[in-house]
Amino acid sequence: MAKRQDTILQTINSPYDLRQLPAARLPLLCAELRQFIIDVLSENPGHLGASLGTVELTVALHTVFNTPYDRIVWDVGHQAYGHKILTGRRDVFHTLRKMGGIGGFPNPEESEYDAFIAGHASNSISAALGMSVASLLKKEDRQVIAVIGDGAMTGGLAFEGLNNASMNPNNLLIILNDNNMAIDDSVGALSQYLVNITTSQAYNKMRYDVYKGLKKMRLLTEGSRGHILRFNNSLKALLTRQHNLFEGFSIRYFGPVDGHDLSLLIRVMNDIKHLQGPKLLHIKTQKGRGFKPAEESAAEWHAPGKFNKATGKRIRPDNPGRPPLYQDVFGHTLVELAREDKRITGITPAMPTGCSMTYLMKEFPERAFDVGIAEGHALTFSAGLAREGMIPFCNVYSSFMQRGYDNIIHDIALQRLHLVICLDRGGLVGEDGATHHGVFDMACLRPVPGLTIASPINEWDLRNLMHTAHRIAGTWVIRYPKGEGEKAHWHNQPEILPAGKGRKLRDGADVAVLSIGPIGNEVARAIDQAGSRLSVAHYDMIYLKPIDEDLLHEAGRRFKRIVTVENGVIQGGLGSAVLEFMADHGYTPRVKRIGIPDAFIKQGSVAELFKLCGMDAASIARAIVEEM
Amino acid sequence: MAKRQDTILQTINSPYDLRQLPAARLPLLCAELRQFIIDVLSENPGHLGASLGTVELTVALHTVFNTPYDRIVWDVGHQAYGHKILTGRRDVFHTLRKMGGIGGFPNPEESEYDAFIAGHASNSISAALGMSVASLLKKEDRQVIAVIGDGAMTGGLAFEGLNNASMNPNNLLIILNDNNMAIDDSVGALSQYLVNITTSQAYNKMRYDVYKGLKKMRLLTEGSRGHILRFNNSLKALLTRQHNLFEGFSIRYFGPVDGHDLSLLIRVMNDIKHLQGPKLLHIKTQKGRGFKPAEESAAEWHAPGKFNKATGKRIRPDNPGRPPLYQDVFGHTLVELAREDKRITGITPAMPTGCSMTYLMKEFPERAFDVGIAEGHALTFSAGLAREGMIPFCNVYSSFMQRGYDNIIHDIALQRLHLVICLDRGGLVGEDGATHHGVFDMACLRPVPGLTIASPINEWDLRNLMHTAHRIAGTWVIRYPKGEGEKAHWHNQPEILPAGKGRKLRDGADVAVLSIGPIGNEVARAIDQAGSRLSVAHYDMIYLKPIDEDLLHEAGRRFKRIVTVENGVIQGGLGSAVLEFMADHGYTPRVKRIGIPDAFIKQGSVAELFKLCGMDAASIARAIVEEM
Repeated sequence: MAKRQDTILQTINSPYDLRQLPAARLPLLCAELRQFIIDVLSENPGHLGASLGTVELTVALHTVFNTPYDRIVWDVGHQAYGHKILTGRRDVFHTLRKMGGIGGFPNPEESEYDAFIAGHASNSISAALGMSVASLLKKEDRQVIAVIGDGAMTGGLAFEGLNNASMNPNNLLIILNDNNMAIDDSVGALSQYLVNITTSQAYNKMRYDVYKGLKKMRLLTEGSRGHILRFNNSLKALLTRQHNLFEGFSIRYFGPVDGHDLSLLIRVMNDIKHLQGPKLLHIKTQKGRGFKPAEESAAEWHAPGKFNKATGKRIRPDNPGRPPLYQDVFGHTLVELAREDKRITGITPAMPTGCSMTYLMKEFPERAFDVGIAEGHALTFSAGLAREGMIPFCNVYSSFMQRGYDNIIHDIALQRLHLVICLDRGGLVGEDGATHHGVFDMACLRPVPGLTIASPINEWDLRNLMHTAHRIAGTWVIRYPKGEGEKAHWHNQPEILPAGKGRKLRDGADVAVLSIGPIGNEVARAIDQAGSRLSVAHYDMIYLKPIDEDLLHEAGRRFKRIVTVENGVIQGGLGSAVLEFMADHGYTPRVKRIGIPDAFIKQGSVAELFKLCGMDAASIARAIVEEM
Repeated sequence: MAKRQDTILQTINSPYDLRQLPAARLPLLCAELRQFIIDVLSENPGHLGASLGTVELTVALHTVFNTPYDRIVWDVGHQAYGHKILTGRRDVFHTLRKMGGIGGFPNPEESEYDAFIAGHASNSISAALGMSVASLLKKEDRQVIAVIGDGAMTGGLAFEGLNNASMNPNNLLIILNDNNMAIDDSVGALSQYLVNITTSQAYNKMRYDVYKGLKKMRLLTEGSRGHILRFNNSLKALLTRQHNLFEGFSIRYFGPVDGHDLSLLIRVMNDIKHLQGPKLLHIKTQKGRGFKPAEESAAEWHAPGKFNKATGKRIRPDNPGRPPLYQDVFGHTLVELAREDKRITGITPAMPTGCSMTYLMKEFPERAFDVGIAEGHALTFSAGLAREGMIPFCNVYSSFMQRGYDNIIHDIALQRLHLVICLDRGGLVGEDGATHHGVFDMACLRPVPGLTIASPINEWDLRNLMHTAHRIAGTWVIRYPKGEGEKAHWHNQPEILPAGKGRKLRDGADVAVLSIGPIGNEVARAIDQAGSRLSVAHYDMIYLKPIDEDLLHEAGRRFKRIVTVENGVIQGGLGSAVLEFMADHGYTPRVKRIGIPDAFIKQGSVAELFKLCGMDAASIARAIVEEM
């Protein structure tokens, strides 16, 4: 990165510096901050759109509030790049999301300015409420601010927080950063509601007349400020034919305010910051603000990869003949199934682009459901569809599935519903880091009775498994990773893979390697490396549950040494299942388990993380050989 | 049970019979139904209050709707006893919650009238929405009705459902059964909001005047019915200084209606059932209705056990000198800790009585938080408190913790917060059955990095562990069962139990039994039975994580046979941890794991279920001996 000695930004090493600046210089700082984000992200891929939208908000927050004593709790870290840059991380910002660099999301371990972890959406209100209540209990006058997007506001956890916000003394300030957009378009009644609040300016014109009229009829007196505030909101509600949800939760509502009008933001925040009790400030921002292409196509520029900042063109890796993404194979195969069976439906909690359910949404819009950031609902809604005979494919990112764990147990498995849970982003995801790795799924779902849990070694098997899950009734979990697969020609003729049957990929005599999922391809390479020294068999289990007992009997009988390999936590997954089987059946092979160790793994490329965890081909090869 | 040939109820073998009755006879049926519930429950313990409150609602629903073609989705089954009795289960109603009898909650496997499973709160809207959408996709004119209590409405899942209810074509009817009460008092802004809607009858008087006035001012015309409906609701909002939340979600709101006025209920339901689009009917009911003691003390009579229906006295088991409940030991110990350290706080999602946090609420109300049915929020709110230096004890029933799995991983463990998660109702819970057994906790939490997971063998160790968790920073999970402990004199002088250290209870030479938690007492009895034939060592692990490696080295070195015993799922828990350790360290004992098999376990007494799962003393003794 070129040094920028001549900028204001270069002089801001912490919010203390920011608060020394004359107000007149702040707009220039915003412009520089925005350009800095564009400059760095054009070469170092990250989440562009959200952080461009919060530049003024970020500057206003650190100007008005006494950070880090006052706490800013960002909901989903996408929006917090400006915050990172202004809080001492400007010079390392280019290491964002890289191994050993700074993380893509706020993290208290990284900076005292990061008040709470922020990888999964919708947690900010609950967390900030706890922090605010704690401050009052400790008799501190600390301000706590939750900054939550309209997308994250659709999560049930955010509503639970809202419902509790008025119950105990606290001065929580919730800033609703409304850009009518989560990653894809926001969905749900709330989203429409926010649009209506904002667009119905008619009430401004009418308010005075109505107010005068009611007063004349002695139906209202000029009472307290709060009274009038609520009165005005009621009128707004009346005329927009909508109601203020937040006032319904006994939270004072202010807004909407233009989130790019810096001086207005600062004025409003200064006005309300000392008001007692919980309050919500609704600001309107534009995703991608200040970078034309991102303003015009927010979904595409959410996380655009590298781009040419001059031409506004994304730099896409040149990949003729490369294998497709697992995501696209999922999306196309789902459409294929939907064409042949009217019962097929697709459900996604706010990730239609990320998981490629967009194809189904385009061809069968009435059978595709984007329910917003609401994993629990996505699963239970799918259960309702299944109850009435549809065959839902509910696609959830593995790490977000943790939000729906009980829905899987209580609403789905217990009723033995025919329903397919597709876990996208299974395994280590790379740059998004610890909050996003999908590594607990196999261990936490394996004990759930009645589930069929599978993971394909490549795109062909993903297609095979989706077709099998369509044919064979039961609750299915199909887990696959983010990104590119193995087969350039992915469009195989699907075949049924009998549930609970694995496959011998290669025979051998000295040691057996048992793997599940695409990590099996690393295993194949490992065996190629180790194969000159010993004879190695390789079994692709395909199914974690029911596990292939014939195959395990064979392995238990024939081999003194077994190595298990899985892209998931080492405790409770495939390796443990193999150990349990061997113990239950009296086999005594030596078993070496390879998987993710008992630690939260930070960000890095998938290849780097595989190496870190001893899951790359070379490490696996060493383990196979050492085993002897 | 005496036969009742002379009653109307005795003639109702299904809702078809009910729908043949003349309207004039329905009130008598309601009275009989209520008496039948009281009669049966006085001798067969169950959830009394909720079902007495829904007698008229139940009769109205089955009269107006064409069940089972139309679907009633009950949210939390407590309220559905009348439904069970009217849908062919009258004569087996006395087997409720017993082994081999009917379950305490609706369950589609039990009856075609039970449209969806209903053990965990707040799932009805999402499930019914899915069912309603499916019906329209299949071009059926099926009606789907979700019946949800005001307590369940505080759950985030219910809000996610509301937010999505208007997004796709459907004719969902939500009936909000508002008794201002979940199990304990309802909490949260929503609860206050519902009270306000109802009590402010002033608007009825004023509505006409205001309406006339506005019309005169030409601010309103008489438009569509929906327009007027919303207008009226806006006025209501204006005058109650509250806003209609449900209209904010684009769901048509009707009510509140007296839920004990049968003919009114039937009329209103008939009026609205064919309206297109999602709608919500708000009814007010009284918990315990028709049985004076239950009307007067709803929390006490939620699930009163046996009682004398004539005197209205609960029949409490005579237990002088019996050990206390784990729950009370938890409650008293928390108060003890709170007295000595101002940082101690207590959080419960709607179970203050059930988990005995009531003691803390009484002595330190400002440090005790009942957040309503909102497990995710309870955990993340606790994380916020911990972030600011408080030491929260968040008490969640084990099976409801599944709702907060991601909150534990993402909001708590990842930040290494000093916070104590107390999992009440760990293990098989008995009569509440499959939805309520707390059996997945150890397997799903063991892989989460950084957690310290412990389970006390008795009340003394519960106290020891709570004191230890207070002293030693870190994220703690302390898991204990429902009900009576082992020690009549529970109030020991607490001692610190070093994290990751188990305890040898008895030495032996032939076989080692490793157990965790109170099931260790069954093990002790088992060893007494088996001990004449061989020499058995018994280790109480205390900690599942970090597991006591010294102890396991000793066991691995000294014993050729090991038996593990845990009151949790057999896959992924203690037994798997022991197998993993032995494999990793090259020990080759024969390991037999005892725990809950891979199936959903229905209701029964805990003793019956232990026997069923091979976890009672006699079965364990057999396993120890057979092992040889």
